[in-house]
Amino acid sequence: MNAPALDPIAAGRDLLARADALARHSDSPDHYTRTWLTPAHRAAALQIAAWMREAGMAVRTDGVGNVIGRYEAAVPGARAIVTGSHYDSVRNGGRYDGVLGILVPIACVGELDRRGERLPVAIEVVAFADEEGARFQTSFLASRAHLGKFDTALLERRDADGVRFDEAMRAAGLDPAAIADGARDPASIAAYVEVHIEQGPVLLEAGMPLGVVTAIAGGTRHRVTVTGSPGHAGTVPMAMRRDALAAAAEMVVAVEARARSVPGLVGTVGILEVANGTGNVIPGEVAFTVDIRAGEDAVREVAQRDVFAAFDAIAARRGVAVAAVRNHAVRATACSPRIQDLIAQGVAAVGAPVRRLASGAGHDAMVMAEAAEVGMLFVRCGAGGVSHNPAETVTQADAGLAAAALLAFFRGYR
Amino acid sequence: MNAPALDPIAAGRDLLARADALARHSDSPDHYTRTWLTPAHRAAALQIAAWMREAGMAVRTDGVGNVIGRYEAAVPGARAIVTGSHYDSVRNGGRYDGVLGILVPIACVGELDRRGERLPVAIEVVAFADEEGARFQTSFLASRAHLGKFDTALLERRDADGVRFDEAMRAAGLDPAAIADGARDPASIAAYVEVHIEQGPVLLEAGMPLGVVTAIAGGTRHRVTVTGSPGHAGTVPMAMRRDALAAAAEMVVAVEARARSVPGLVGTVGILEVANGTGNVIPGEVAFTVDIRAGEDAVREVAQRDVFAAFDAIAARRGVAVAAVRNHAVRATACSPRIQDLIAQGVAAVGAPVRRLASGAGHDAMVMAEAAEVGMLFVRCGAGGVSHNPAETVTQADAGLAAAALLAFFRGYR
Repeated sequence: MNAPALDPIAAGRDLLARADALARHSDSPDHYTRTWLTPAHRAAALQIAAWMREAGMAVRTDGVGNVIGRYEAAVPGARAIVTGSHYDSVRNGGRYDGVLGILVPIACVGELDRRGERLPVAIEVVAFADEEGARFQTSFLASRAHLGKFDTALLERRDADGVRFDEAMRAAGLDPAAIADGARDPASIAAYVEVHIEQGPVLLEAGMPLGVVTAIAGGTRHRVTVTGSPGHAGTVPMAMRRDALAAAAEMVVAVEARARSVPGLVGTVGILEVANGTGNVIPGEVAFTVDIRAGEDAVREVAQRDVFAAFDAIAARRGVAVAAVRNHAVRATACSPRIQDLIAQGVAAVGAPVRRLASGAGHDAMVMAEAAEVGMLFVRCGAGGVSHNPAETVTQADAGLAAAALLAFFRGYR
Repeated sequence: MNAPALDPIAAGRDLLARADALARHSDSPDHYTRTWLTPAHRAAALQIAAWMREAGMAVRTDGVGNVIGRYEAAVPGARAIVTGSHYDSVRNGGRYDGVLGILVPIACVGELDRRGERLPVAIEVVAFADEEGARFQTSFLASRAHLGKFDTALLERRDADGVRFDEAMRAAGLDPAAIADGARDPASIAAYVEVHIEQGPVLLEAGMPLGVVTAIAGGTRHRVTVTGSPGHAGTVPMAMRRDALAAAAEMVVAVEARARSVPGLVGTVGILEVANGTGNVIPGEVAFTVDIRAGEDAVREVAQRDVFAAFDAIAARRGVAVAAVRNHAVRATACSPRIQDLIAQGVAAVGAPVRRLASGAGHDAMVMAEAAEVGMLFVRCGAGGVSHNPAETVTQADAGLAAAALLAFFRGYR
């Protein structure tokens, strides 16, 4: 690591200024929301492409709007370290979510380009057009398309305004028939590395700016329905009740208790609804969601079995019925130990402590892991770890340090 | 008790036929709903008045629409046993709720009249025009007015269609200025006795047709708000969470556990709402209601203190905030031991077992207790004890037995 380091202070300042500038391309004047193929989304793509070119990259846009910049290797045509993240957002989101993983590598490439420095591998920065899927309720639309795994059934889906997916593409100058043409050959990818804001409080609490991701958690989401017996809140003695809410409350507590029992396991009831809830009526039916995640699938699967066994026991004891429907399931993605170590070397090279942690949120790296070994570099999230929210923050210092560490990783990659 | 008994079989058949007929006077063609001063409500009043006259009573209607029938005593002008209940309903209610307490005493009086039998006391049947308060969100409007305790502030209240209370009165031919004229002198009331469907499962479970009410439960209702910290369901480790729903769930379980600890105490969380609930977000704010009732105020007050102390302890342990606002409070009403015993003698006289129980629901007797000693006779509720619901049922046999027992009570009253 004798190559000159990127100046983290200047880089951090520029990165946050670019994140601010990009956030101005929003579907709403009131908050930062950028969904797939809206005018704001297309303007953001043009801005990203301009920054890529300015950093010395050759830029192309693929069939779903991914913006791909390539910084050639010392030997032209070499395999590439692919890096990037998404430039769409959730509704009323945070300006660093996704965007940081595009801006940081552009800054690194810009530094290499200024120095006329070429590496044994090419660097390709991919700005994924849609990860959040807010407009068409999609999941990893852009990274899937990047790997030639686009689901053509989506073409007939409609957004909240009734606009069809394929119509939205044509209106944005994209040809639905050409999506497959953009698919890349996995053999051209040396590795995929993604920089991302942590979106949680672990690094913040630990007092560390950067984190090396060990795995991206797998998770399941179920909708659970508890059916008891409604009744008058004054006239039915406690012993004769089959109260659906009291049963559901006990289940919520059981989810939390089981999730607390193992580090790295999380369990959340985010929605709970009492059907026809009235202050003086014993609830007869309650529905709630259960979201369980862990970096290791085996840990999650055992926890989930235990949670549902607890639900059954609670329901049987109380004389209520319980039923669950699975809405969502994704397996955990392990980050390559080799890439983890190379990222850790990059972090150490800039003088930051190395903290390894799992990612509880999903990222494009989960999809890219189907084609190459993957790794992720997390950047500390301010404001208590809040993300998907306008309060999301990253400090200049942390952003600059991330760029310096990623550049060290690029240079150290073998 | 040598007087001839009313024939319970014939009386029961007639009572249920009248309840069916009265239920046809409904605000909606689809379900039984009868609210204050609607055309259906006025038609029901006319029908009740006709049945009262047919039973030998002198009938008058007061300023809020109460229909009052008097069956004179052996000595004209004697004090009256006042008996009755309400002829309005909740939305989509049950046809026996309230109405049974009007029809049963009319049947008793009809029997006395057929035999030319006069008692030492007069009997006055009051059909209260509004107990449920569904139209103007009132509480015991009619029985309060009957005692000269009408709250004139109500005159400016508006219903869901924007109709003012006083306009609704004038449209029904009632003069708001004349409400006070209908107020009765408490000294004219010997006692108030109310027949009512139990609205709960206690008599049904016990296999007993009739019940003697010991007290009408007092109750409080609070709205409780729990404020924690929202967060990403995947990225915030369990130990760093301040989950408002998990805290609220523990509180719901605490309410139930405390209420179970004492017979006659009930506690219900009927509404629970997660603000902006989303499956993958840790809830930051939850609101719920707590309804606590008991036949004895001291029992309820201690329970309530314990419940709120438990809430505070749960909140402190979890680092969340809890706040409560009281929306409703009513003290318990004791039924007169003397009247209870006289009702019990009436029940025993018809060969039914005597079961004493508290009423968990509120009744006009709570208001009438401000003017006279009160008692209530409960009639077994079918269909699992469901009330305020079209599924509410009473059997012919039980209704007939209630009439026979009430008649025995009237005859035995001293």
